[in-house]
Amino acid sequence: MSPVYWEMVGALAALLTMFGFVPQILKIMRTRSVEDMSLPMMYQFSLGVFLWLLYGIYLHNRILIVANLVSLACFVAGIALYFRYRSQKAGQQEPAGGAS
Amino acid sequence: MSPVYWEMVGALAALLTMFGFVPQILKIMRTRSVEDMSLPMMYQFSLGVFLWLLYGIYLHNRILIVANLVSLACFVAGIALYFRYRSQKAGQQEPAGGAS
Repeated sequence: MSPVYWEMVGALAALLTMFGFVPQILKIMRTRSVEDMSLPMMYQFSLGVFLWLLYGIYLHNRILIVANLVSLACFVAGIALYFRYRSQKAGQQEPAGGAS
Repeated sequence: MSPVYWEMVGALAALLTMFGFVPQILKIMRTRSVEDMSLPMMYQFSLGVFLWLLYGIYLHNRILIVANLVSLACFVAGIALYFRYRSQKAGQQEPAGGAS
């Protein structure tokens, strides 16, 4: 297969994973519930994605750079939402059979 | 900085992100609760990571290949756990002030 085809595969991969956490962010904003989310998961991804970003800069690979910049922003947003709704939760009683 | 140093940055990035979903999987296994998890998020990451794997094979980049193989396994495990505990949840009433 031609290099152009493979660059499209890489670009599609980058698009999907760079915005991969967006559905989770939208769900958190909708339900305002983060009880089942793992904070260490978001920390670990944030640090890992930051190092991928540095590695992408070293390789001069634009796909790695842009993809991991966006991913990092998504995970940081997830962490911010976690603390926003986590602390909210602590101050209120969860209703029986809460949001599905 | 030397190329060896940068390869270590890439390897550490790969280690962190390839196992990035593991804390979430452990939390699901502990709480048996997946209500706040986004299934589209896990589908999107799985497909994206699969395409990164193909792109890594094209580039002959071992870090991309191994990292995305492990990531894919983690997200598939997450999806399996989601359906396991999601269907369990449907058959029982959630207690007030459920697991934190």
